[in-house]
Amino acid sequence: MTTQSNHTTVIDQRFAPVAELMSSFAANDPDYSGQLAVYQDGNLALDMSVGENCTPDSMTGVFSCSKGAGAIVMALLVQQGLLDLEAPVAVYWPEFAAAGKASITVAQLLSHQAGLPGVAGGFTQEELVDSRLAAGILAATAPLWTPGSTHSYHALTMGVFMEELARRCAQETLQEIFERRIRAPHDIDFHLGLPEDLEPRFRPVLAALDAGPAPFLDPFSPMGLAMNSTGGFEGPKGPSFEIMDVPNVRAIREAGLAAIGGVANARGLARLYALASTGFVDESGDEHAPLLTEATIAQVSQDRVFGLDRAGGSPGAFGIGFMKAHANNDFGSARAFGHDGANASLGYADPAYGLALGYVPARAEANGTGSRGGQLSVLARQVLLAG
Amino acid sequence: MTTQSNHTTVIDQRFAPVAELMSSFAANDPDYSGQLAVYQDGNLALDMSVGENCTPDSMTGVFSCSKGAGAIVMALLVQQGLLDLEAPVAVYWPEFAAAGKASITVAQLLSHQAGLPGVAGGFTQEELVDSRLAAGILAATAPLWTPGSTHSYHALTMGVFMEELARRCAQETLQEIFERRIRAPHDIDFHLGLPEDLEPRFRPVLAALDAGPAPFLDPFSPMGLAMNSTGGFEGPKGPSFEIMDVPNVRAIREAGLAAIGGVANARGLARLYALASTGFVDESGDEHAPLLTEATIAQVSQDRVFGLDRAGGSPGAFGIGFMKAHANNDFGSARAFGHDGANASLGYADPAYGLALGYVPARAEANGTGSRGGQLSVLARQVLLAG
Amino acid sequence: MTTQSNHTTVIDQRFAPVAELMSSFAANDPDYSGQLAVYQDGNLALDMSVGENCTPDSMTGVFSCSKGAGAIVMALLVQQGLLDLEAPVAVYWPEFAAAGKASITVAQLLSHQAGLPGVAGGFTQEELVDSRLAAGILAATAPLWTPGSTHSYHALTMGVFMEELARRCAQETLQEIFERRIRAPHDIDFHLGLPEDLEPRFRPVLAALDAGPAPFLDPFSPMGLAMNSTGGFEGPKGPSFEIMDVPNVRAIREAGLAAIGGVANARGLARLYALASTGFVDESGDEHAPLLTEATIAQVSQDRVFGLDRAGGSPGAFGIGFMKAHANNDFGSARAFGHDGANASLGYADPAYGLALGYVPARAEANGTGSRGGQLSVLARQVLLAG
Repeated sequence: MTTQSNHTTVIDQRFAPVAELMSSFAANDPDYSGQLAVYQDGNLALDMSVGENCTPDSMTGVFSCSKGAGAIVMALLVQQGLLDLEAPVAVYWPEFAAAGKASITVAQLLSHQAGLPGVAGGFTQEELVDSRLAAGILAATAPLWTPGSTHSYHALTMGVFMEELARRCAQETLQEIFERRIRAPHDIDFHLGLPEDLEPRFRPVLAALDAGPAPFLDPFSPMGLAMNSTGGFEGPKGPSFEIMDVPNVRAIREAGLAAIGGVANARGLARLYALASTGFVDESGDEHAPLLTEATIAQVSQDRVFGLDRAGGSPGAFGIGFMKAHANNDFGSARAFGHDGANASLGYADPAYGLALGYVPARAEANGTGSRGGQLSVLARQVLLAG
Repeated sequence: MTTQSNHTTVIDQRFAPVAELMSSFAANDPDYSGQLAVYQDGNLALDMSVGENCTPDSMTGVFSCSKGAGAIVMALLVQQGLLDLEAPVAVYWPEFAAAGKASITVAQLLSHQAGLPGVAGGFTQEELVDSRLAAGILAATAPLWTPGSTHSYHALTMGVFMEELARRCAQETLQEIFERRIRAPHDIDFHLGLPEDLEPRFRPVLAALDAGPAPFLDPFSPMGLAMNSTGGFEGPKGPSFEIMDVPNVRAIREAGLAAIGGVANARGLARLYALASTGFVDESGDEHAPLLTEATIAQVSQDRVFGLDRAGGSPGAFGIGFMKAHANNDFGSARAFGHDGANASLGYADPAYGLALGYVPARAEANGTGSRGGQLSVLARQVLLAG
Repeated sequence: MTTQSNHTTVIDQRFAPVAELMSSFAANDPDYSGQLAVYQDGNLALDMSVGENCTPDSMTGVFSCSKGAGAIVMALLVQQGLLDLEAPVAVYWPEFAAAGKASITVAQLLSHQAGLPGVAGGFTQEELVDSRLAAGILAATAPLWTPGSTHSYHALTMGVFMEELARRCAQETLQEIFERRIRAPHDIDFHLGLPEDLEPRFRPVLAALDAGPAPFLDPFSPMGLAMNSTGGFEGPKGPSFEIMDVPNVRAIREAGLAAIGGVANARGLARLYALASTGFVDESGDEHAPLLTEATIAQVSQDRVFGLDRAGGSPGAFGIGFMKAHANNDFGSARAFGHDGANASLGYADPAYGLALGYVPARAEANGTGSRGGQLSVLARQVLLAG
């Protein structure tokens, strides 16, 4: 029997059953620990952690939840009129027109339709950290498929695209925009570039238990390219791509790659999405207005693509940078927009419910994304529907 | 042991095995009862009912088989030159151009590609019965997805679209066109609007046995919107959406909603599709010429969309209002066109075989659409192939 | 216990584990026999047969691997500037514009998107052997679906399309081009039209063991049309479509239909793809330069379509005539191009590895395409990745 170390604050009593469900995960599995935070209509409704390896204010790697933060920056640029989703990418990034990509639009690029999941041999850590290098390589690369014919999750290169578009449209890095306009003024525990002084709050990502041997992944297949299989990050064990170790490398979390380099906690994820959608009231009672207008949200959260993922073969749905819920990934309504991460972390806003939810497990979940996060999301909606 | 009450008329002896299969359903399941009728090359070949809760001329709700009747009306308008499938919807219905829908064509709208499965909060019964109201709301609504990117079954709103197009193109309601040009002159037991004097022939739809508890359906998800989850019909138990009870409400079957309001029997379904495709010979030996030309049939029965349904996640295929058979829904050849209903009723024409088939179970089948209807369809084709 | 009769030449020792895997198939299954040949960077690396019914130089029917040979001819025509993939088919074949097909491009036609899997009643053997006849019928036929909306494997008609395009663009038959420019000058054991004097090397295709009864296949369904279910070949047992017997009919292998009429062995398949991609060194040490440039390979091997097959309902991916690997058919990297056959034969090139692989089982495998071929392909890549 493991001693549980739980911190639970239920501000909105409607969410008590959600807190109970979260607690049951730890009660039923001594290896489990994680965080959950929920805002509803801009008010913090639930804030908790369960288990040994985290507290509500500890932070860890949230992998592709970082793309959600990047997508919020993209939405800001759209809202400001600096980025036109229907324009060809090459309007902003002329080199991108090479190799048959002249007509690919920003909307296609940001919804995983460009056919550029990676390059043979993979990217080096340096090319990804200074993503102007990776962007230059991708601009010269031919798409895997005829543009418009399919989509496939661009696990790493989506971050490169977002970072390059930020540089091209705003003359500022995506990370700078995020810090200046989003994180710092609203005191959000979500960092694209974790400063040295916050390192004591960082907890390394714990590897999933008994994941079993992985099947052969051809490094030159669409999935292998997307996973950067032959490239790698310079971890303590040398170049590798043990994905769960990526945020455990200080250089990665210092750089804060928009693809997978974010460090956050559930509080930060929930607050980020509350800021984007409903605005929120902070601890001092100060009101933070919504970052995005309803029109911007409608534009970036509309479905852009749905179908079988070319690489993985399973269904996927995307808006502009954001994941969309679908029959096999029920994290919200048709209006929900968010992103999950490889460790099964999840952050999203659901305007149909006024919800913003952040979920971060301390240990990566073996069966991939979302079963616990999805259960919490379903119950959060049910308690609101019940009144 | 339930006493069976069977009425079977096999006119074309080739179909005797089909009659035996239908009888076996009742013999093997005392709760089963249903009707089956088949025309081949315009001649009634088989006409039967099995079990307690129906006779060959009783009628019940046939749910989305109603869309097949609506689609035949649309085909008539196309054939008359009143409706151009390739034109933008907004040519006929200017308000529809709002919210990014200016380029959506009639063909896209009628093949479930418009991205308008419903609205948050649902429609009221009044808005659906007087579908000018629902149409006005939908015209102002933004599509869930970028037009052209996917499709999803528009369970209720497909009827609204058909009804609005009829009003706009023909200055007559869809129900009036159906009654004046199809049902009355050809004496078809398929009513879009059941008259009071035929009420004695109506049998309430029986709920499926042991359907089990339904999983959570988010009323704001694509599926929840399509199912009008938060709206409802004013049933005997107050506002509700127990779908199997919908045609049991007199006001609904009086209105005869093109989406789900039809009342029919298997005879009516089979005769409707025989009229549309081959024409038929009636009880008096009078010949009724085919309603649709081969060219019209080719146009409206061509596949317009195939792929995973955005809401349900399973494959679907549609022509202009009609369902098309596919690997997971084998009700006919590549030329077959028809529609099934939520109670597992089925009606279709298959020009490759000269077949028109109607199947109506008295009790909704638990596993949804089509296994018994599909079995009957397969066997009907096999007996014809065997000569 | 069957006496095994194995012939194994491992030239490149890295492939010894692949040879062991191939041998294990026969060791574990006395009914198994087959051939395997591998080139790497243009050098023969492995050449073997196992089991009773073949030797490395015997030949048998390779079914749709023939389409790979046809696709290499198409690629040659593209490379010569005789065929523009983005042009409408009707530019070369004016009659094809009929029935709503004016805008279908060569690329769509050659990637299974044209919606012409077959015709009701099927083609006769004569119409397929003199494919000008089948082409004339198809040119007048309306597509099953709105062009651009989906794809479906055109099992027989793909050969007709390739043959007609060859005649129209090159004033020579596809088989003549293949013989004159590919097979004869490079001494390849792959025949589109097996000459009489090579008949002694032909081994009839052995039917799969215990395939079990097939489910109903509607001859007028998309799949039934594609399989020419109501047509047939004039086999020893009269008109039939026992597909595994097709190449066992002398007239078929004499004609060498580009769809399914090729006769080859694993050596021939591997050499064909080595010639196309890397070039190869023959037994005399003479170098044969690559037939296709890198630019041509990129053009014809790019994904043109990916998604659920309209007929079969399973995922498929195609370039220009070539099959592409995907999550459910892992025969190579994103750059691999090839084709399998109904007997589970497989031939492909994978430029990411410098591989060209041919695999031909003597007996058709019951569960269709590729599990043994796929296993061999995976291991061949693994040994190269391991160095």
